[in-house]
Amino acid sequence: MNAHAWTRMLRVEEGFRLDDVDADSTPGYSGGKSQGKKDLAAGLVELNELQERLFAQSRSGIAADSVLLVLQAMDSAGKGGIVRHVVGGVDPQGVALSAFKAPTPEELEHDFLWRVARRLPEPGFIGVFDRSHYEDVLIARVRALAPADEIERRYDAINAFEAEAASSGIRLVKVMLHISPEEQKERLMERLERPDKYWKYNPGDVDERMRWPEYMQAYQTVFERTSTEVAPWHVVPANHKWYARLAVQELLLAALQDIDPQWPAADFDIEAEKKRLAAT
Amino acid sequence: MNAHAWTRMLRVEEGFRLDDVDADSTPGYSGGKSQGKKDLAAGLVELNELQERLFAQSRSGIAADSVLLVLQAMDSAGKGGIVRHVVGGVDPQGVALSAFKAPTPEELEHDFLWRVARRLPEPGFIGVFDRSHYEDVLIARVRALAPADEIERRYDAINAFEAEAASSGIRLVKVMLHISPEEQKERLMERLERPDKYWKYNPGDVDERMRWPEYMQAYQTVFERTSTEVAPWHVVPANHKWYARLAVQELLLAALQDIDPQWPAADFDIEAEKKRLAAT
Repeated sequence: MNAHAWTRMLRVEEGFRLDDVDADSTPGYSGGKSQGKKDLAAGLVELNELQERLFAQSRSGIAADSVLLVLQAMDSAGKGGIVRHVVGGVDPQGVALSAFKAPTPEELEHDFLWRVARRLPEPGFIGVFDRSHYEDVLIARVRALAPADEIERRYDAINAFEAEAASSGIRLVKVMLHISPEEQKERLMERLERPDKYWKYNPGDVDERMRWPEYMQAYQTVFERTSTEVAPWHVVPANHKWYARLAVQELLLAALQDIDPQWPAADFDIEAEKKRLAAT
Repeated sequence: MNAHAWTRMLRVEEGFRLDDVDADSTPGYSGGKSQGKKDLAAGLVELNELQERLFAQSRSGIAADSVLLVLQAMDSAGKGGIVRHVVGGVDPQGVALSAFKAPTPEELEHDFLWRVARRLPEPGFIGVFDRSHYEDVLIARVRALAPADEIERRYDAINAFEAEAASSGIRLVKVMLHISPEEQKERLMERLERPDKYWKYNPGDVDERMRWPEYMQAYQTVFERTSTEVAPWHVVPANHKWYARLAVQELLLAALQDIDPQWPAADFDIEAEKKRLAAT
């Protein structure tokens, strides 16, 4: 069992510049695509064992910890593939997936953190946010959906919210999947060329694409303001889907290893129960 | 693509007797364990394609249909394995899993159907109920958790509720996994012998086990009263896990084929979008 240490290279530290990240790169991993797929399959076995131990704790009422994977990205960067091929390998009983769309009227009546707070994972679960409260400082900023001082307030609110979540036992794994604009163009074009992909295409995707530099600036600010000790960001180069999936799996493994969940001890008299059962 | 017709043999029809079902049998399937595992893997490919089409409809706002798998069984019959190995093979984005435990105080303040009604799948989704409103006429009957006339009322209430759900586009796939008491004894004993299985054992399981004949009678009544044209029951012999998984997969495939979801047409001008995208 390795220490999954190579994903430390993806962590946003002081002085990080999104502009400097090559979306084609595969930092920390020299294995290549074919080896990467093998390592993904091997990692899944470990992920499943750790997840089952964590889930067992919840069923035994002794779980204190959980994991929350927060996924952010430009359109077509591969969030769906992460959900399908990384999270999808885990027992669905232990996963709580939340896909956040544009807020509903009810959600807009509350503070922007209201809808995400309700979806924080319970102890023993792996939660996944497909988009998140970060939309409220990304598209909200680029599209001026809220006043500038409100956007400004939100960074601190997010940090306080995440610090509280972390202190309650949630391991936050915040990931931005980073593709290049050229790669996005290819992926969107493919959606326009295949009838089984039309449903994934939205004309609005091109509108957002035209604001690429503004989005990158908004992400840069997010990283500067909200990559904290208890809830650091990771930027995962995602032009190579196999690499992005492997990297996110590694980040999940590292979070679970940090929890190090153990099989719960029996809270009953094993020998007495064997006798009771044998007598039936 | 075969018609998945063999699962019709599992359907509860007029005159059905649970006592007559051999939990060791594999009705309609002569392939054996090793072929069964191959067929399960092959079926998963088909299940994924159908599920993705259904989900695509929901994302395009044109979905009218959904599937709801209702799983009932005695302890250790393999509900968890169905969730893990059949449902777990499908993209988690399109699955809505609800595990119903003993009702909370809040739930008990409402009608017994309140908590399940809120978890009916939205159009485009595959919903799974791990236990369900049927607990309210199973354990509730065996343990006299409600007055006899209330239990009696519930069968009709369930039929009305399910008929309404079906008319709204939900394909109900109701499954009882049927194991023999001898098989249950072995499985419970294994949980007492393996430290990584203790968490799955509950002394209450033996208490319920001692009421086996009463439970079988309660199930028989459920089948007689609630196996309807729009929401029939299926009893799946489940001493062989591979067979039960294959059978439930087939039932899901049949429900999805009945919906026959098509890829949504583009609701935008494809050529115009190609030009817009190319210009960016």
